Amino acid sequence: MADAPLFDRVAIIGLGLIGSSIARAAKAGGLVGTLVAVDRDPAVRARVAELGIADVVAETAAEAAEDADLVIVCTPVGACGAVAAEIGARLKPGAILSDVGSVKGAVVRDMAPHVPPYATFVPAHPIAGTEDSGPDAGFAELFRGRWAILTPLSPADASDVARLGAFWEGMGAMVDTMSVEHHDLVFAIVSHVPHLIAYNIVGTAADLEEVTQQEVIKYSASGFRDFTRIASSDPTMWRDVFLNNREAVLEVLGRFTEDLTALQRAIRWGEGDALFNLFTRTRAIRRSIVEQGQDTAAPDFGRRATAPAKD
Amino acid sequence: MADAPLFDRVAIIGLGLIGSSIARAAKAGGLVGTLVAVDRDPAVRARVAELGIADVVAETAAEAAEDADLVIVCTPVGACGAVAAEIGARLKPGAILSDVGSVKGAVVRDMAPHVPPYATFVPAHPIAGTEDSGPDAGFAELFRGRWAILTPLSPADASDVARLGAFWEGMGAMVDTMSVEHHDLVFAIVSHVPHLIAYNIVGTAADLEEVTQQEVIKYSASGFRDFTRIASSDPTMWRDVFLNNREAVLEVLGRFTEDLTALQRAIRWGEGDALFNLFTRTRAIRRSIVEQGQDTAAPDFGRRATAPAKD
Repeated sequence: MADAPLFDRVAIIGLGLIGSSIARAAKAGGLVGTLVAVDRDPAVRARVAELGIADVVAETAAEAAEDADLVIVCTPVGACGAVAAEIGARLKPGAILSDVGSVKGAVVRDMAPHVPPYATFVPAHPIAGTEDSGPDAGFAELFRGRWAILTPLSPADASDVARLGAFWEGMGAMVDTMSVEHHDLVFAIVSHVPHLIAYNIVGTAADLEEVTQQEVIKYSASGFRDFTRIASSDPTMWRDVFLNNREAVLEVLGRFTEDLTALQRAIRWGEGDALFNLFTRTRAIRRSIVEQGQDTAAPDFGRRATAPAKD
Repeated sequence: MADAPLFDRVAIIGLGLIGSSIARAAKAGGLVGTLVAVDRDPAVRARVAELGIADVVAETAAEAAEDADLVIVCTPVGACGAVAAEIGARLKPGAILSDVGSVKGAVVRDMAPHVPPYATFVPAHPIAGTEDSGPDAGFAELFRGRWAILTPLSPADASDVARLGAFWEGMGAMVDTMSVEHHDLVFAIVSHVPHLIAYNIVGTAADLEEVTQQEVIKYSASGFRDFTRIASSDPTMWRDVFLNNREAVLEVLGRFTEDLTALQRAIRWGEGDALFNLFTRTRAIRRSIVEQGQDTAAPDFGRRATAPAKD
């Protein structure tokens, strides 16, 4: 006999890349008895039914949340508050409510007021994704070897935090906890500002009058194409991230600009040593990322089958 | 009988990623009779002999260039002038001199004065590479399906330009020509400034006091790691690029900063539509790059074997 699933009934609200990957991974791992899915877009609901990645496709978020032991909101962060308002009163006693938002402060601000005292809200953020969107983009292995961060709101939530952590581990993730505030600063630097500057450089390139868009595309293998991957991430999701992590993003962006101005000055004044020293330092960080299994060691991200494996 | 090779004797000066890839590709394609290699670093010369990727390993650049029909300088661009000064008088009548530098204006400025009237200098730039360096990093397929840009200096060089173009095509590249000035502006936007901002964001992240380097590494899969690849490119090569394409880099950097300031303002004032519109535009550019075969369609650059192929 297999072990009993971690949760009898899990509701996933929002079946994009992340939501649909959770559905697939939770079923594949035997973590859930009945998996209920809902999306506000009827086309997505129909597609989820077609894909067969949920046991039940509900019509509304409120209906999906009812009787669920675990409810995970997987909408863009700007929509989390409205979803919480809709489902809050329908949560059953003892239910765990969670989310997957890339921003935690604003999500807590918007969702927490709607959570009844007999349920527990445990905010979460899996550090995984691709540039693709929608229910077809998800896959069961998305979270394998990646971090899932929980930002518990109270020490009293410890047992629910542990249970939610076990759910993420069951999908192959490694679990970390940190405060809401620290989360938002960490992800401003490792995710939000990098996305912003990727979007920005792609926009700048598209707008230069002296260089055609066709040239930019043709010669993109010289560096530019690396930026276009994350600059093709879901526009709604990312708009919401920037609007909802404003303070941390602006702070980190200020640092970035300060540093860039210093580099610009070093170029203008021909200060080769300053450039060389930075370029040497940054190389070491890449090495650590590869050593810690957070990226591939293959040159060019292993894009080219013809590139030799590193030994 | 196989066709006669395009060039009887080819000298490659500087056996890093690009030089050693040319050696491998030229031999693999039967493009060259005798391939002579030289590097100013004795350890590299020894390694090249060990790898067996050249027919002759010379002791000095001057010796390598002598009697060669084609000489390709593959050193960092800052060293091109000194190499040209060393080999100029040793070039044989009718020889073609070329290079692979990411910057063309400064290379022409530094090399052209040393080229005797009986030889032809045809500057070149293959749009290919990985973040790795040194003679072991090269591979014969590096140029396959990638662009090689020639920036001819005079209409009188047409037949030599065609011959050098055929050499690059023989290594699998597609050949384009453009002016020196236009090249330097195009690559400021598609390559140099992207590298600079990648180096910069990695440096900014490493220096934040509130976020540990360990956190940056752990959570890098959320976007940051994409930047670390190009920020681990060869420091000497890139120092030289920025010092030698100063005007175009500063101009494009000015545009980038202007655009970033506008984005920053949009975030501060909560202008979601401006963000959404940019993020939608940039997505289309990624699509074109993939359609034109300049990047993989696989999510996450195909990093994860578990990600589904796109259909």
